[in-house]
Amino acid sequence: MLRGVPFGRSLVSRYHSLTKLPTINQLFSNINNNSLRNNDIVPELNCYIQSIKTLKNVTFLDLFDGTSSQPLKVVINNRASGAMEVPLDELQMGQAVNLTNWRITETPNRLQTFELTQNTDSKLTIMGKVEENYPLQSKQKVTVQYLRSIPLLKYKTNYFSALIRFRSLLQSKLINILTGQDFVMCNPPILTANDTEGNNETFKTIPKNLNLTVSTQLHLEILAQSMKNVFTISPCFRAEMSDTGRHLAEFWMLELESTNLSDLKDLQDCVRLLMMNAAESLLNDKNIDNFLPNDNYLPMNTLNKEQIKERWQHMANPESWKQITYTEAVDILQKNYPNPPIWGESLASDHEKFLAESYFNNGLGAFVLISQYPTSIKPFYMKHSKDNDKTVDCFDMIFPGGMGEVAGGSVREVNIDTLNKAIGENATDLDWYVELRKLGSLPRGGYGIGMERLIAYMFGLQNVKDAIPFFRVMKDKISF
Amino acid sequence: MLRGVPFGRSLVSRYHSLTKLPTINQLFSNINNNSLRNNDIVPELNCYIQSIKTLKNVTFLDLFDGTSSQPLKVVINNRASGAMEVPLDELQMGQAVNLTNWRITETPNRLQTFELTQNTDSKLTIMGKVEENYPLQSKQKVTVQYLRSIPLLKYKTNYFSALIRFRSLLQSKLINILTGQDFVMCNPPILTANDTEGNNETFKTIPKNLNLTVSTQLHLEILAQSMKNVFTISPCFRAEMSDTGRHLAEFWMLELESTNLSDLKDLQDCVRLLMMNAAESLLNDKNIDNFLPNDNYLPMNTLNKEQIKERWQHMANPESWKQITYTEAVDILQKNYPNPPIWGESLASDHEKFLAESYFNNGLGAFVLISQYPTSIKPFYMKHSKDNDKTVDCFDMIFPGGMGEVAGGSVREVNIDTLNKAIGENATDLDWYVELRKLGSLPRGGYGIGMERLIAYMFGLQNVKDAIPFFRVMKDKISF
Repeated sequence: MLRGVPFGRSLVSRYHSLTKLPTINQLFSNINNNSLRNNDIVPELNCYIQSIKTLKNVTFLDLFDGTSSQPLKVVINNRASGAMEVPLDELQMGQAVNLTNWRITETPNRLQTFELTQNTDSKLTIMGKVEENYPLQSKQKVTVQYLRSIPLLKYKTNYFSALIRFRSLLQSKLINILTGQDFVMCNPPILTANDTEGNNETFKTIPKNLNLTVSTQLHLEILAQSMKNVFTISPCFRAEMSDTGRHLAEFWMLELESTNLSDLKDLQDCVRLLMMNAAESLLNDKNIDNFLPNDNYLPMNTLNKEQIKERWQHMANPESWKQITYTEAVDILQKNYPNPPIWGESLASDHEKFLAESYFNNGLGAFVLISQYPTSIKPFYMKHSKDNDKTVDCFDMIFPGGMGEVAGGSVREVNIDTLNKAIGENATDLDWYVELRKLGSLPRGGYGIGMERLIAYMFGLQNVKDAIPFFRVMKDKISF
Repeated sequence: MLRGVPFGRSLVSRYHSLTKLPTINQLFSNINNNSLRNNDIVPELNCYIQSIKTLKNVTFLDLFDGTSSQPLKVVINNRASGAMEVPLDELQMGQAVNLTNWRITETPNRLQTFELTQNTDSKLTIMGKVEENYPLQSKQKVTVQYLRSIPLLKYKTNYFSALIRFRSLLQSKLINILTGQDFVMCNPPILTANDTEGNNETFKTIPKNLNLTVSTQLHLEILAQSMKNVFTISPCFRAEMSDTGRHLAEFWMLELESTNLSDLKDLQDCVRLLMMNAAESLLNDKNIDNFLPNDNYLPMNTLNKEQIKERWQHMANPESWKQITYTEAVDILQKNYPNPPIWGESLASDHEKFLAESYFNNGLGAFVLISQYPTSIKPFYMKHSKDNDKTVDCFDMIFPGGMGEVAGGSVREVNIDTLNKAIGENATDLDWYVELRKLGSLPRGGYGIGMERLIAYMFGLQNVKDAIPFFRVMKDKISF
């Protein structure tokens, strides 16, 4: 009997296994590392049916449980199916099933390394039925847009479950990279009196009339001033009406702040290197295929495994990264783009797209860091450039692939007079922020990375709505 | 010159270092692993002054930067101080300083392994001044309550910076344990139409009139039904008026949901083993002292390093864990406690305290899992006990040390009729939750762990307000 055998990966193998039943991914891992062998019996397994193929003598089931990109193959001898206490003709796609006492049978000549076959006492029990019109049919090629419309079911698809596993892995890797370099993970407040970006796009609360945070930067500065390197991966909220593939009312942001990042060059190096390290760490992960879509189950118009890895290789390559100033960007656009901005204006998304996807383009586009924007179009907290009061020491990080601005950051203004002038008179709720500069302040800088835009680029999504488990936008009714 | 040498720990050493300047902790690590040696020059360092001791010929500084529990000692030759371009008598506690070109000097006969001494071109520059009445004076023993009142400064103390590092480490370890066992980290929404616990204590938003989530459980169930093992560490909100050392209006919860946890025994084993694994993982961490307070800088009435570790050893010990039913708990209380509950009532905090700190007590108290509470005092989603409609298959996890209920969980009701009856007629916004049971549903269970209560116990805090970087409670004005 395997019941009680630890199924955990090596990382925690010396600790206790948290669940007795295995996942399908754990079965695959344990076959690969020989802790499960040919003819061993799997005592119990809960999963759901992804596809059914009935031949004259045998029935093939593909079982999924959302933990693996590979389905688990089960072979049922039709004549012996009575022993399973379920008539074969009741089986249906999407049903949740419980299997007990099935035999591991190696299949050296097939794509998958093993399948489950019937033992004398094998049982298969339907635990959860589905209705007649179950919308996910295996042979039908669907669109991501359609899956987006069935949030209760879409994670039963290979593609969307891989996407959530990828999101989890990317977060873990970012956390491990940052904590491994002495960045402390913090949880700044969501409820706040501040509107950091000053765009009047905050959600307010009843009771208390507080803002839901639009950025945790100001609180991270308190922590960075004392603890040097800090970061958070935290939800942020913007009640903005933009209805594009790049906007959410609730999104997650990796925000980082450090008193070791006191000039624009170091700050831009930091964000670029974090992105390169994350991509490299994914490419070096020996289990990475389990966090990528299975090419046999791709929705229409999505990237396959190799195309996704190609994006990561592109990110990890220093040649793909470009740094220009805002002034240079305007100059390039004025010389090369039909509808350019004039100096002082914001760059529109089509300007950013042109730079990252056409002007700097070695096939997959480029990651473009644009620095030193005009003071007048950026928030109060950015440091005024040395000898140039017209620009601030900030950057936007523009990605190709349709995502545009994925991150933005700046060196922070620490001069009290300059800061007070930038804040103006009508923001007394920022007195504490100015006060902070009188309490043993160090130069500092930081940035925020929009997690959904990053995930969208890295998984090849066209809409950030798909990069978060349940999306919230201003336009739609939120009914659950 | 060391500038450019990677200061990262081994985990990421093959990747690029994100910042050029080192942290104090990285200096200590690099001395320990011999990548920095006696007489090497530290090109540049930003930190702040924790204490100053002036003797006739030399001045000793303790420098902190929030990354290490150990201060960095600096020895200044008073007569050569002119070369530093700062008069010694301007130095003050709390000031932020920049050091360039100081020499690493091993000190084999002292407590710390090395100190920084002056080189011919060493400089020390005051980067950030403090005001005359700077409140943190090294020799003055302060209370945690006092530090709580100075949120802009409290993380400059050894104690509170260690606490935030500990919080970060604990979260990392929980994430690594769970993802290592095939639990996928998810980000369910904060904005929701639901009030999961049904206590009418939600914050509402303007615009959109949505609830801020009180628990992400219902959304996690959607994900668990498709992906088996999921968890989140996410902010939750309760607009409740309780003003105790155990309540916050905004707190973080680790919530976990799994279709491999379908009965109460497995569910309770899972939460107990997660706690034991976390404690064991902390105790086995060779760098753990850097996430614990330095006994030389303890505020009044706090636990020292060894007392904190003793709590973790207690958590990791299976003998410290007790499991009783609610009915047994009531029986124990009726026989042993002056003011007991009658069957059917909630357990009050003093009841829980009696069980975890007096009745089951081998010195440090016990961790008590109390199961199967009366149906009438628990939320709609809990599974009715088999053959007993009066109780539900749930548990509360009671901690000693004053924190009381640290976690609660249940097997989820999947029977549609029972569920509809429990929800009642006035909650049509839960139709989707019932619908989920028709979509290939598996038995499942899950729990939520209050992170601040867990951190408070594990660090020896008396108030959860200290376990989160910036606390929010209903009673107080939130001004930043």
